[in-house]
Amino acid sequence: MRHIGAGKLEVLPRFTVASLEEIAALYTPGVGYLVKEIAARPEALSELTGRDNTIAVVSDGTAVLGLGNVGPYAALPVMEGKAAMFKLLVGIDAVPLCVSTQGTDELVALLQAVQPSFGGFNLEDVAAPICFDVMEKATGCLTVPIIHDDQYGTATVVAAGFINAWKVLGRDPSRERVVVCGDGAAGTATVDLLLGLGVQDITVVGLSGIIGRHQIYPDLHRNRLAENTNRAGLRGGLAEAMQGANAFVGLSVGGIVSGGMIRSMAPHPIVFAMANPVPEIMPEVAREAGAAVIATGRFDYPNQCNNVLAFPGLMRGALDTKALRIPREACLDAAAAIAQDVPESALNAENILPTPLSDSLYPATADATAQSLIRLGLAQRNYAPGEVAERTRLLRAATIARQASLP
Amino acid sequence: MRHIGAGKLEVLPRFTVASLEEIAALYTPGVGYLVKEIAARPEALSELTGRDNTIAVVSDGTAVLGLGNVGPYAALPVMEGKAAMFKLLVGIDAVPLCVSTQGTDELVALLQAVQPSFGGFNLEDVAAPICFDVMEKATGCLTVPIIHDDQYGTATVVAAGFINAWKVLGRDPSRERVVVCGDGAAGTATVDLLLGLGVQDITVVGLSGIIGRHQIYPDLHRNRLAENTNRAGLRGGLAEAMQGANAFVGLSVGGIVSGGMIRSMAPHPIVFAMANPVPEIMPEVAREAGAAVIATGRFDYPNQCNNVLAFPGLMRGALDTKALRIPREACLDAAAAIAQDVPESALNAENILPTPLSDSLYPATADATAQSLIRLGLAQRNYAPGEVAERTRLLRAATIARQASLP
Repeated sequence: MRHIGAGKLEVLPRFTVASLEEIAALYTPGVGYLVKEIAARPEALSELTGRDNTIAVVSDGTAVLGLGNVGPYAALPVMEGKAAMFKLLVGIDAVPLCVSTQGTDELVALLQAVQPSFGGFNLEDVAAPICFDVMEKATGCLTVPIIHDDQYGTATVVAAGFINAWKVLGRDPSRERVVVCGDGAAGTATVDLLLGLGVQDITVVGLSGIIGRHQIYPDLHRNRLAENTNRAGLRGGLAEAMQGANAFVGLSVGGIVSGGMIRSMAPHPIVFAMANPVPEIMPEVAREAGAAVIATGRFDYPNQCNNVLAFPGLMRGALDTKALRIPREACLDAAAAIAQDVPESALNAENILPTPLSDSLYPATADATAQSLIRLGLAQRNYAPGEVAERTRLLRAATIARQASLP
Repeated sequence: MRHIGAGKLEVLPRFTVASLEEIAALYTPGVGYLVKEIAARPEALSELTGRDNTIAVVSDGTAVLGLGNVGPYAALPVMEGKAAMFKLLVGIDAVPLCVSTQGTDELVALLQAVQPSFGGFNLEDVAAPICFDVMEKATGCLTVPIIHDDQYGTATVVAAGFINAWKVLGRDPSRERVVVCGDGAAGTATVDLLLGLGVQDITVVGLSGIIGRHQIYPDLHRNRLAENTNRAGLRGGLAEAMQGANAFVGLSVGGIVSGGMIRSMAPHPIVFAMANPVPEIMPEVAREAGAAVIATGRFDYPNQCNNVLAFPGLMRGALDTKALRIPREACLDAAAAIAQDVPESALNAENILPTPLSDSLYPATADATAQSLIRLGLAQRNYAPGEVAERTRLLRAATIARQASLP
């Protein structure tokens, strides 16, 4: 016998059938009633199908994890894993959709074409700069929410980590100089949220060195970065950028930061080394060189800074409110909720972030996102404060109960 | 609280997570290993993801049930119901994909684009003649199997019913004149399979009356029907076609056949009145008028002739063997397996077809389809006789066990 059931997911009915009557009711002719009802009253789609709680996790495989453009087939395990997390953490039914589209317009057209089946989209592992164009165009033409996790999912967790790092160290974001290494999807969104948190001095380092107004870039997003960062007009590479800086965020590749570079920073620097599985600098080396708070993407060190802390709640909040945009403010409110999930009494330099095992994290983040979107006037469906949290708790509990029959 | 869990499906992980180690293994960085493995060795996709057992149930909503072009949104409940049946009956993970594509080329391009995620496609409720073009083009460019259930799913069940009807009545297909009312997807495929069963004299009736060489049609498929049917050169409408015929297959609309029309047929006619929920003629009226074997699409009469008897086994056989075409011969072998699922001792005029509750039906049909495709040289993966049946039994049992946790 060949193996049965490879992969991480199953698509299971919410019922069993034990009689011809049940098959008739649940399949044909029973579904005919639902079709007529939706054809006559389009809003019945929400009550009569699973669409509102179903999303597609879409990737063209152009920037998979740190592995680059491996294509849509090799990207499939990542989308399966992501879909699994969506269901387990916030009860969203997520379908992997790996696509062989080429470029922005084809991908946006595909999202539009499959939109009748999905209440939202999680864009994943799409390379910059295409991902920026896709998000901009898709946000303009879809009637359901779309999130690019590699941009604002990651940035939201970094923001949450910084909120608590500054709190632990008693520092003020407006007086910090932060170096962001990486000018792709995650780096660009992280700069946006750090600016939103009040940081005024950010230095971004890309492959061509420090980004600034001294250069014209081929991509719109890099020119925007040049406008909004590098107040001091620094030039050079990562080493030059880090001298005297208060904080470092690595969203790049493993091993590029040395102990000497940490020592060249201002005293007690904050170091977020997020490259995975090998961080920009290993925590023990950063600690030895004087880093005051250290976060990585790894679960086997303190302060795991992984987007799994953010994307489920962001999507749950966007899906429930049917918001078509999830702006900076909503991400910052979600980041605040993530930060607050670490109780004041437990907060310290080695515990600035909750873990995905926290029972309160996702209901709180989903609720904060939803309330933020409602307040911003972006919600197409309203909930009272706490209602989305309660709904999230129930959906999580239902999934756990459903998993009791796993072999 | 709003309702939770509308719709018929859930996407559930095959695991739970209880520790950070488990999340790391199943999400990131764990999936990185799978990505690298597939990037290096594409055939690992089968072992490391669920793709081989996952299909999309795709519809543009242009011909939904008997309700016509209601569009892709209103089509969603049908695709959900179909996906549920795929899982319950043969253990296939099926994802509804309702699409707003316009016409053949867009739909085929979409199938190609999402192909990295799916091991096969079930095309559903796509109107004729676009469905013929889509199937022809898709079969030529996809690397996974595609079935249009409204064509060969329905036709396969009709063929199975006729095999047993002729057996019960002791008649020879080559001496029968069969009237097929309906020249759309189902009618055209049914003619193909009836020809394959040895029927030599078929009269097709479409909206413009009896189809024949006396007319030129705007569609290729109608011109093909005109070539292969109406040996006697009949003209006129349904009433003219039915005079003296031995059998009637209705794949059209309810209530169009009268008792008088049945009485005008040859003695002891076979009547398949498949329009749903109201058949072309009600069984009691057909019986009264002398019909010897009567089948309908309804579960509340004997001889329910529903495509749910065919599509799960056809797809299971095609999926397991990775056959890119499912030709007439494979459908006929599947039809024979369906017919044989009614034991000789139980076979009579009111029991020519098994029910979807039969435990043996789907394993047998899947195996017959697989062995047929292997024999025809169309299989990309081989199984010994009985192996696909055993696999189907195990997958059915696993699904039933999994459903034990339903609330």
